[in-house]
Amino acid sequence: MAKRIEGTTPREDGFRWPGEFEPQSQIWMIWPERPDVWRDGGKPAQEQYKNIATTISKFTPVTMLVSAEQYAHARNVLPPEIRVIEMSNNDAWFRDTGPTFIKNDATGEIRACDWGFNAYGGFYDGLYFPWDKDEALAQKVCDIERIDSYNVHDFILEGGSIHTDGEGTMLTTEMCLLSPGRNPSLSKEDIEKKFYDYLSIDKTIWIKDGIDPEETTGHVDDVACFARPGEVICIWTDDPENSFYEQCQAAYKTLSESTDAKGRKLKVHKLTMPKKDVTIGKDFTIDYVEGSLPREEGDICIASYLNFLITNDAVICPQYGDEYDSLAIKQLQEIFPEKKVVGCPSWEVVYGGGNIHCITQQQPK
Amino acid sequence: MAKRIEGTTPREDGFRWPGEFEPQSQIWMIWPERPDVWRDGGKPAQEQYKNIATTISKFTPVTMLVSAEQYAHARNVLPPEIRVIEMSNNDAWFRDTGPTFIKNDATGEIRACDWGFNAYGGFYDGLYFPWDKDEALAQKVCDIERIDSYNVHDFILEGGSIHTDGEGTMLTTEMCLLSPGRNPSLSKEDIEKKFYDYLSIDKTIWIKDGIDPEETTGHVDDVACFARPGEVICIWTDDPENSFYEQCQAAYKTLSESTDAKGRKLKVHKLTMPKKDVTIGKDFTIDYVEGSLPREEGDICIASYLNFLITNDAVICPQYGDEYDSLAIKQLQEIFPEKKVVGCPSWEVVYGGGNIHCITQQQPK
Repeated sequence: MAKRIEGTTPREDGFRWPGEFEPQSQIWMIWPERPDVWRDGGKPAQEQYKNIATTISKFTPVTMLVSAEQYAHARNVLPPEIRVIEMSNNDAWFRDTGPTFIKNDATGEIRACDWGFNAYGGFYDGLYFPWDKDEALAQKVCDIERIDSYNVHDFILEGGSIHTDGEGTMLTTEMCLLSPGRNPSLSKEDIEKKFYDYLSIDKTIWIKDGIDPEETTGHVDDVACFARPGEVICIWTDDPENSFYEQCQAAYKTLSESTDAKGRKLKVHKLTMPKKDVTIGKDFTIDYVEGSLPREEGDICIASYLNFLITNDAVICPQYGDEYDSLAIKQLQEIFPEKKVVGCPSWEVVYGGGNIHCITQQQPK
Repeated sequence: MAKRIEGTTPREDGFRWPGEFEPQSQIWMIWPERPDVWRDGGKPAQEQYKNIATTISKFTPVTMLVSAEQYAHARNVLPPEIRVIEMSNNDAWFRDTGPTFIKNDATGEIRACDWGFNAYGGFYDGLYFPWDKDEALAQKVCDIERIDSYNVHDFILEGGSIHTDGEGTMLTTEMCLLSPGRNPSLSKEDIEKKFYDYLSIDKTIWIKDGIDPEETTGHVDDVACFARPGEVICIWTDDPENSFYEQCQAAYKTLSESTDAKGRKLKVHKLTMPKKDVTIGKDFTIDYVEGSLPREEGDICIASYLNFLITNDAVICPQYGDEYDSLAIKQLQEIFPEKKVVGCPSWEVVYGGGNIHCITQQQPK
């Protein structure tokens, strides 16, 4: 009923990875709490997670996974329409630690790929240790939903490092996927073969760099994504003084010159970066942990509007109190006329190293 | 979606408590592990729980709740058709710590009553402390299944202390329900009013005593239950030397003289007790905990065949290696000609203080 499929691959079994813009049955999240990641004991981050979850739940059911220690508190502050399930975890990035759900269009069956996870780089340049609970999380989720899964623990992959058009095209970055902290023994071709077998991908578009080499080693979900087959969205700034100017130009160039799995030339939409850098403020207090990077006043955070979530009838867009907050919403609304674009404050998530897309994951219908 | 219903009662909302013999969607269990309850680190008990769960799952889907610490082990030893979900707990008695599922026949909706739980008597004569995780368990289960519930934490009640015919009749014991360790401020009439409001019970049949005053304070599920409306089963022995002779006679007499909510005189089936006492053996090792009763060689265990589970198309009957094991199966098969009676070894569960019915609970379809 929730078994590990052995001896076949998703491609052989007729499964593909649907695009984020396809119909969803629910959105998964994990409740943040680590005092060495989230400032002030996690309380400001919890408030923003709650607001993001509540906003999403107006469009798509949300399940929030919560540690035993935080369960009573989370159940109390989250509205009843959000399903809260106890689950141990090392941190709150379901995009990266959860399974990737795949679909068989002929039967309607949903299965999942349960990738290896090593906290964004393991002992090479990973962000925390241990990561055993995060590694175990995907199978637990599948068991709850009675979803069969493929064990791909021999391949380190985070959901935030890949995007698809649902029609055989993959978008990813070399910075992350080819990092020595991920799968140092695998070549680009080996990795494309994994995508071919497990996600039914026929063509991978490789963007060279992400924008956060020190955090996720350049996840693509801060840089570009598909709006629909044939159309991508790319971070953008015209301002040469912007901290991410070079990366915007490079990614845009790559995408503009790319064709997808079906041979289509991609239409590339531009999505603004914030006007000003989002930075770490004064009196920013997280617990000390041996080996972790401290956060210091003035540190530039990775605040990309591109890290939005596409869900049923809506797009949930990060907001930073920046002058370009409303411009980002306006641009997304033009790209997604069929959906309602809703802004959610997410700077506390950014302080922790991620954003709305990083902390959510869609389960296709 | 999984809310607490407030301001109304199940009776007002059209819900009743179905009989155990009615169609079920799944059976819930909790994985045993406490080394101060289960001998040899819980390993022999885990083996019998596994066998019981596997047997049930041939007839009805089973969900096993497991602590974070035991999750990997349990998932590994349990067959894939058993759904395994992480959940913190204080011990492994889902009958008593889980919710009581109720049904609205007009809409088909399932809801649940989430009773108060105090580890079988709280600070008066309870069996363990703390019991906070067990008290929190029912709501977590409801959230997983997206089942709305009624918060009845102001009423201490274990599922093993009550049985119903699904047609308005309740079977319980005075020894347990009127114990000073449960609801000392409530009279018999107050308790019957709770049953009336929350389980749509019109008549409660009170058996005086259970057979385990020192464990569950006499749960009815070791003494008697309904086979179907109008028919009950009662423990029985003709042997005056049997340790439970007096209790068998008394319960049988009470039931024989009772009528149900619809005014029917009950048909009372006899179910044998084991021929010999099941006793604690030599070298029985459980961890020491302050205040708990040690188990000593020769202690008589509460081994009733009556603590069976009725599930879809089957009855799962305790087996002790006793001369009357097959007689119990034969008698149950005569009472349930429409179901298959299957025996499962359960002496390790008995050593821990319960039996097959105590460790399971049905969720009606």
